[in-house]
Amino acid sequence: MSQLRRDPITGRWVEIAVSNPKRCDEFDIKPQTKKGGTCPFCQGNEKMTPPEIEAVRDIKTRPDTPGWTVRVVSNKFPALKIEGDLDNRAIGMFDMSNGIGAHEVIVENTDHNKDLADLTQDEIVNVISKYKSRSVDLENDTRFRYILLFKNHGEAAGASLEHSHTQLVALPIVPKRVKEELKGAQNYFKYKERCVFCDMISQEQQEKERIILENKHFIAFCPFVSRFPFETWILPKAHSPEFKLIDDSTIYDMAGILREILLRLKLRLNDPAYNFIIHTAPIRDGIYEEFHWHLEIMPKLTNVAGFEWGSGLYINPTSPELTAKCLREACTAK
Amino acid sequence: MSQLRRDPITGRWVEIAVSNPKRCDEFDIKPQTKKGGTCPFCQGNEKMTPPEIEAVRDIKTRPDTPGWTVRVVSNKFPALKIEGDLDNRAIGMFDMSNGIGAHEVIVENTDHNKDLADLTQDEIVNVISKYKSRSVDLENDTRFRYILLFKNHGEAAGASLEHSHTQLVALPIVPKRVKEELKGAQNYFKYKERCVFCDMISQEQQEKERIILENKHFIAFCPFVSRFPFETWILPKAHSPEFKLIDDSTIYDMAGILREILLRLKLRLNDPAYNFIIHTAPIRDGIYEEFHWHLEIMPKLTNVAGFEWGSGLYINPTSPELTAKCLREACTAK
Repeated sequence: MSQLRRDPITGRWVEIAVSNPKRCDEFDIKPQTKKGGTCPFCQGNEKMTPPEIEAVRDIKTRPDTPGWTVRVVSNKFPALKIEGDLDNRAIGMFDMSNGIGAHEVIVENTDHNKDLADLTQDEIVNVISKYKSRSVDLENDTRFRYILLFKNHGEAAGASLEHSHTQLVALPIVPKRVKEELKGAQNYFKYKERCVFCDMISQEQQEKERIILENKHFIAFCPFVSRFPFETWILPKAHSPEFKLIDDSTIYDMAGILREILLRLKLRLNDPAYNFIIHTAPIRDGIYEEFHWHLEIMPKLTNVAGFEWGSGLYINPTSPELTAKCLREACTAK
Repeated sequence: MSQLRRDPITGRWVEIAVSNPKRCDEFDIKPQTKKGGTCPFCQGNEKMTPPEIEAVRDIKTRPDTPGWTVRVVSNKFPALKIEGDLDNRAIGMFDMSNGIGAHEVIVENTDHNKDLADLTQDEIVNVISKYKSRSVDLENDTRFRYILLFKNHGEAAGASLEHSHTQLVALPIVPKRVKEELKGAQNYFKYKERCVFCDMISQEQQEKERIILENKHFIAFCPFVSRFPFETWILPKAHSPEFKLIDDSTIYDMAGILREILLRLKLRLNDPAYNFIIHTAPIRDGIYEEFHWHLEIMPKLTNVAGFEWGSGLYINPTSPELTAKCLREACTAK
């Protein structure tokens, strides 16, 4: 018998195969193969990208030359363009806006063959610090209402370049999924006078079976209503609506837990394709005290797109209890 | 410059590449290859499936033997099981239900190598009539609140068996996406005292550029806010909330327009993988007079899963104006 579980934030139902879950070793994963070729993100090829926006680099070196460890550039083929004014208008019954926005790429390291999981905790600290500094900078642009940070790893997850990188998109609108989460958190708060994410952390800490690991500032678990096998959420333990307000000691812990989770996924699942997204409150739209920023990792192990897209009903062939156990036991510590 | 377009039903924003859309011949489509092997849906292999629920068959033949043209069986590996009582309960802050439901398969024809697009209009009439009769029958079961009819064509769209078939799932809950559509249609109706889908038909008929074709009872167009390249909606022109109330002459026209659209997609795009879903009102939940049933076809041409899933922001590399033109000109009539 399967279970239908209801997400307390968005009201989404997910069917979970609890009685006969697919085992961790039953997923047929095609490992990523690097194709090589000239890569615009490799050291020495700095001229192949648009000009550098920011970088962590040796102070004796100039922008757009070697000597960096993390490098931020504009996306050469941006989803949205930075130039222009907002122009919201209607065409009959339809509303539209022109596609103003920023689309940046954070190149995480110089080595073509190293993924984010292969970096040291200190190196990941530098990457996350760039997530923060770019968020802070772009929020000054009054045209933008949302900053979306996400990573596609592997072709099946939509990565078009194989050199490890994260993307940032600044949007003139608030995406639907974000609005739903905000609304859900606000409704829960109105009813209970507590944060739904804080409550979720408490319940996971009581039940324990879906927790993968914790450190001082973060907890990582497979959520009760996991849409995808091995879906993993990383939440800061202290309530905070906005990612960009993260302080240095919290960045250090975030780098540690993110590295450990990505490493365990890589080891346990033979380097699966995955997406991760940082969920944070909108900017300029008022204060979202009810929201709790976090990071959601979605490994791409199943191919069940259209039905889920169309219905909003997800079918998860395994259970978060089983995948959490699997990742808990995949400890990489020496 | 791209455009951001807002869906008037759900509020979803989609980014559309209007100024430099990907051309119809630029999609890299891997044609479906049939692998062969013993197929449980082929004529002669009736014993390989669970017992027949309904069929269009020669009256001189018995169930579970050859002699049929359309055959309905239970899914051998059902997402939900029909036996048992509903059991809604809470685990701490989480809500759940057991996975009661029906999961049926409508085998559309006996020939392993014929897709739905390859059938005659009369043969498709028989298939759609089974969609209707199964919907009517399952709605008698008071445990169910929603009947979902959908088709996965091709491996990339999640089809695990290649013999052409449609699936029906009867659910004890109303899926999130359906709720959103209902809510959107209700809100629009409250504000305008008109159906949002009827208004959409009028506007498409005025603008004309996104219409692919029409017949007496149906219109097919690429919606203004297409999430996916070549996304196509087929709407009955007469307002009706429930698919299952469809009459015979409307079924005939639905078969005609569905066949023509699927055929044009197949010819123009080299047999792409696709999903289609029938969107209809919930059962037993009250009357949804504001809703307007329809069918949505989503070809699987792009690989942009995690980001869209996570953010609710879809990026469409082409425009519905261009894809509608392409399908309009792909006329197959002799």
